Amino acid sequence: MFRSAEALLRPKSIAIVGASDTSGSGWARAVFDNLAHGGFPARVYLINPKRDRLWDQPVYPSFAALPEKIDLGIVIIPAPLVPETLAEAAANGLKCALLYAARFGEGGDVEGQARTQAVVALCEKYGLRVSGPNCMGSISLREKLLLYPAPRVRALPEGPVGVVFQSGGTFQFWLQQAAARGLGFSYAISSGNELDLDLADYINFLVEDEHTRLIACMVEGVRRPAALLAAAEKALAAKKPILLVKVGRSAAGQQAAVSHTGALAGDDAVFDAVCAKYGITRCPSLDDMIETALAFSQGRLPRGERIGMAISSGGAKGLFLDYAQEEGATLATLTPETVAKLQPIIDPGVPAENPLDTGAGLATSAVRFTECCRIMVADPNVDLFAMYGMLPITAQDPANAQAYAGVRAATDKPVICFGRMAQNVTDLGRAFQAEVGLPYLHGMPATVRAAQALVRYAARVRSGVAPLPAPRGLDLAGAGLDCALAEHGLTPPRSGFAKTPAEAGRLAAALGFPVAVKIVSPEASHKSEVGGVALALGDEASVATAAQAMAERVRNVEGFLVQEMVDGVEMIVGARLDAQYGPIMVMGLGGVAVEAMRDIAIRLLPVDEALAREMIGSLRGKALLGEFRGRPARDVAALARAIAGLSRLFLAQNEYADFEINPLMVLGAGEGVRAVDVRLARRSS
Amino acid sequence: MFRSAEALLRPKSIAIVGASDTSGSGWARAVFDNLAHGGFPARVYLINPKRDRLWDQPVYPSFAALPEKIDLGIVIIPAPLVPETLAEAAANGLKCALLYAARFGEGGDVEGQARTQAVVALCEKYGLRVSGPNCMGSISLREKLLLYPAPRVRALPEGPVGVVFQSGGTFQFWLQQAAARGLGFSYAISSGNELDLDLADYINFLVEDEHTRLIACMVEGVRRPAALLAAAEKALAAKKPILLVKVGRSAAGQQAAVSHTGALAGDDAVFDAVCAKYGITRCPSLDDMIETALAFSQGRLPRGERIGMAISSGGAKGLFLDYAQEEGATLATLTPETVAKLQPIIDPGVPAENPLDTGAGLATSAVRFTECCRIMVADPNVDLFAMYGMLPITAQDPANAQAYAGVRAATDKPVICFGRMAQNVTDLGRAFQAEVGLPYLHGMPATVRAAQALVRYAARVRSGVAPLPAPRGLDLAGAGLDCALAEHGLTPPRSGFAKTPAEAGRLAAALGFPVAVKIVSPEASHKSEVGGVALALGDEASVATAAQAMAERVRNVEGFLVQEMVDGVEMIVGARLDAQYGPIMVMGLGGVAVEAMRDIAIRLLPVDEALAREMIGSLRGKALLGEFRGRPARDVAALARAIAGLSRLFLAQNEYADFEINPLMVLGAGEGVRAVDVRLARRSS
Repeated sequence: MFRSAEALLRPKSIAIVGASDTSGSGWARAVFDNLAHGGFPARVYLINPKRDRLWDQPVYPSFAALPEKIDLGIVIIPAPLVPETLAEAAANGLKCALLYAARFGEGGDVEGQARTQAVVALCEKYGLRVSGPNCMGSISLREKLLLYPAPRVRALPEGPVGVVFQSGGTFQFWLQQAAARGLGFSYAISSGNELDLDLADYINFLVEDEHTRLIACMVEGVRRPAALLAAAEKALAAKKPILLVKVGRSAAGQQAAVSHTGALAGDDAVFDAVCAKYGITRCPSLDDMIETALAFSQGRLPRGERIGMAISSGGAKGLFLDYAQEEGATLATLTPETVAKLQPIIDPGVPAENPLDTGAGLATSAVRFTECCRIMVADPNVDLFAMYGMLPITAQDPANAQAYAGVRAATDKPVICFGRMAQNVTDLGRAFQAEVGLPYLHGMPATVRAAQALVRYAARVRSGVAPLPAPRGLDLAGAGLDCALAEHGLTPPRSGFAKTPAEAGRLAAALGFPVAVKIVSPEASHKSEVGGVALALGDEASVATAAQAMAERVRNVEGFLVQEMVDGVEMIVGARLDAQYGPIMVMGLGGVAVEAMRDIAIRLLPVDEALAREMIGSLRGKALLGEFRGRPARDVAALARAIAGLSRLFLAQNEYADFEINPLMVLGAGEGVRAVDVRLARRSS
Repeated sequence: MFRSAEALLRPKSIAIVGASDTSGSGWARAVFDNLAHGGFPARVYLINPKRDRLWDQPVYPSFAALPEKIDLGIVIIPAPLVPETLAEAAANGLKCALLYAARFGEGGDVEGQARTQAVVALCEKYGLRVSGPNCMGSISLREKLLLYPAPRVRALPEGPVGVVFQSGGTFQFWLQQAAARGLGFSYAISSGNELDLDLADYINFLVEDEHTRLIACMVEGVRRPAALLAAAEKALAAKKPILLVKVGRSAAGQQAAVSHTGALAGDDAVFDAVCAKYGITRCPSLDDMIETALAFSQGRLPRGERIGMAISSGGAKGLFLDYAQEEGATLATLTPETVAKLQPIIDPGVPAENPLDTGAGLATSAVRFTECCRIMVADPNVDLFAMYGMLPITAQDPANAQAYAGVRAATDKPVICFGRMAQNVTDLGRAFQAEVGLPYLHGMPATVRAAQALVRYAARVRSGVAPLPAPRGLDLAGAGLDCALAEHGLTPPRSGFAKTPAEAGRLAAALGFPVAVKIVSPEASHKSEVGGVALALGDEASVATAAQAMAERVRNVEGFLVQEMVDGVEMIVGARLDAQYGPIMVMGLGGVAVEAMRDIAIRLLPVDEALAREMIGSLRGKALLGEFRGRPARDVAALARAIAGLSRLFLAQNEYADFEINPLMVLGAGEGVRAVDVRLARRSS
């Protein structure tokens, strides 16, 4: 499933194809200089049939002429020459080619697509690996391999973050700013068109790399969804968090990504479901991904979801509360012991509660402020702690690294330092951050999001990825379906067949009122047109009377169908096969008006009852299922069982691609659900 | 309505009360040093009954002992001493006191509240003005008046931004970071508890100040809503944009703000309606307010809403499209002439469209890239232009200020430069930004929000604030109400009274089917219990039959009420008096299920048809009013007329505090609306 990026990222020998001062607008020279500057320890050859010597080195006319087989060919030649050159290279044992050039069919041009096909054929024939085309190269920090055509990457520090960006233009800026904030890198790859090696391959490489502890990606499109899922599962098992920014929330953004990368778009909401299942953190912006990477870089995970926070400002505390609610964060309730310890330290008149405003009196005392923090982080109700703190910008700024480091040392819980806003981070600031040993984040919204990302990731690490069972080939034909639905909590409305009006009345009494009565007769195929349907009948006599009246209007009466009428909250619950990511569950509130608002939740299967409850809880209109305007709460437990049942049922069969229950009526607490209408669509294959 | 902050911000004489090296933890000394450092040109006296000389100056025992009357007393003494000291000061002609101390009843303590009452009494008796208490002072940049107790404010540059923060702790950090980004300040006030001078007073001062062109605030609570509205209206008329961050989106945040400031909370959604009416930009975070202030600082406003954008990256273009949709931005469609001019300049294979990805080939050519920008900004379909650009951090970074300045010079439209992400902004970067003459924003989400803020503000500047008409004292008692509703587009369902079953049938035919029939009889007060109601009758015969059947069940039949049954989209439309901000309109989709989602829009009155359409367009479930699942579109024009009519009707009377129409049924296009149920509540006074 995974192709190796070893020859790209850890080559033992390199050849620069198209070596000259001018080729690729000077890129060949820039890459060569970066290799020389980094001190790349292995052999670097130059290839150019028009030269003998360049940059104090011999130049070879071809791969055939080289004294050894080459791991990595860095190909800086015009796109039209690439297929022919690679054919010679592959025939002479090249393991991997890095292609920078564009015009490989990105905009849909036919010549470029033919070029791509020719290179793909070489990959298949020779087992050649290709990175790019249409990329900005890769950087292997430990290997001192700076295959990026600009000197600014020389300043990037080594560290635990592995980076894969499909957008080569954005790549360098993220690396630079992340480095300015104190992050360091193991490998950084701009993956371009992903003609061969793709996102899944690179993530797999980074998961297997012992120096990478955290993976950050910018994604425009996913070429091999199944491989991505496998890589994500492997990353989760290895406790290496994946963070990503993905283009495509909007239709226009998705279309731009499709035409830019040539990858299939897929349903963006399903991608969110992928992230939820595999513990991937999807960040709303490139800046946000830096804050979240900083939060993850400390390597600590919370044991629960309860966040503690301290700052020396009432106004900032108010804003923090707003952001906490926006992000759905759970705030810790301090124990009475913690409150009693805090009260004498903080300013008089401010409440000792979480989130804590210590009062402005502690703003200038790092010692007293961090004493409060140590007390709070030790509270058993706090799982993760956010501590106000700014990095010094100049030597004049107050700085007490020991005080803040003391909070880290006093606990094994994750601690995030945060400022109210962004600030310039200087060498002094980075050194201070390193001395404290805690990440310093910018801004309260990003801090709350990062804390929530830690909480969600930790929960997923604990739960792992629920495996998809192999289908049992359950046969749902005919009566088996109703039975299977009922067995899985998808109870149909109660009903029965009566031969006479009197029997219909007794049956209705047994079913419970109100009921609907429908005539059964070969002459009444359109029952309502012939007056063969009566709804909302409330007692035995009405049922018998209505049935009698129907019988008088129609000949050849066989009997009467009596069915309970259900009144509840309408839901839509469905399981289907997504073209990219396989079986998914889609559920939401039903009814025309509500459907217009698209208040739905999507998760990958399997969905158990706990996950079903999470889905229900994520609906904007979930209040409808609770006590609402004097009506008692609905049977949410039965709804969760029904959703989990549908998940099991869908996975047990391999005949249908789509189950939709619309409506699934949710009755009062203890009364269950009723699958009023069930539609199935067969798999097309 | 407004109290003058003149003596606070432009005093001619100052006395520091409590002058000593130790008072206020050294604050007195710090303020004195800041005054000396700034070179404040007017007279500064020291007051302390326990001293004779200090800091090479004479010290006076009291205000009475001073050689002149004082404009501003800077009071740095413990809270319990404040009332007595101020009494002496006010009696001796002090115009304004700046109180730093806390413990004036913020946490609800009784002693502090008594202190506040004592000072308020002095304000009333002597016309004394007070700034604070519980604040961090003020800064008047042109007057060299640095009344903030720390040296770091000395580095703040002069400029056009006036600042009012209720949170003194947050104040300095915003100023520092805004300055780092190139913003300068006229006046900056931390307003604290606002015992006397408040947000509205300070905004009024800044609007009247000729050097202030932009006002930035952090708000926890509004003490005098009517004064704030008046100040906001004055600011809009003076074309001085107000930006603010307000605590209180969440109930918890609001509660924290209330207990921190003592101001009333009010409805946060109504505050959004205030912002919409007065062109106030509410920023989601402190960082965002810096980006938006930068965007406004260029002083140009767009003539329309169409945004153009250029960047040299397809991935970034995709993200920009996502953010544009999230923020509801309108993107410009380029003319064919513009497309033809762009095509030969940009990389081959990338489309010449807006937003523009020029291709990576232009990433290193500021000249070619800005040539594209000049072409785009000249397009008549572009009202505002966002141009990719980074500030140089060090002298090694590429920098071509002329190229970017050329885009500014080529147009009078607003142009925003933006980077994909935050970056450190150094002296070099600020100088570059000043040379270009355009603001450089951080991050695409904030850039789109800032562009939208410019678009919305410009629209409000064009429209102005619609005035509230004086109530005409319209009498709505009795039959006048139905008539007035109908005249204002709030059509009731058609109905009539029939004496006999046959007449009921004919009346129904005249009204149009289906109809409901209700018996009118003194014996049938609970009509449905006695079988006195029939719904959904579809023809004349059914009506007559149903009426006949009712008449047989009840004695003393007076006749029958026949009413059209309406089937449409249920809305809730209401006008009411908000306790803080006066008359407001609340509208949204109706029906139990939809109400659970709180899909509503709120605006301050008056609401005309254009604003009503904007409210309708802001609903998540607005799709229900358009063509939906094969059903034709609803009569949105009639809905807008009804909303505007309700606005006029509500404002014409002064008897009722609350009109609620629930449901207002919206029928098919051309069929109007029906105000099925109208409830009124009288004013309590």
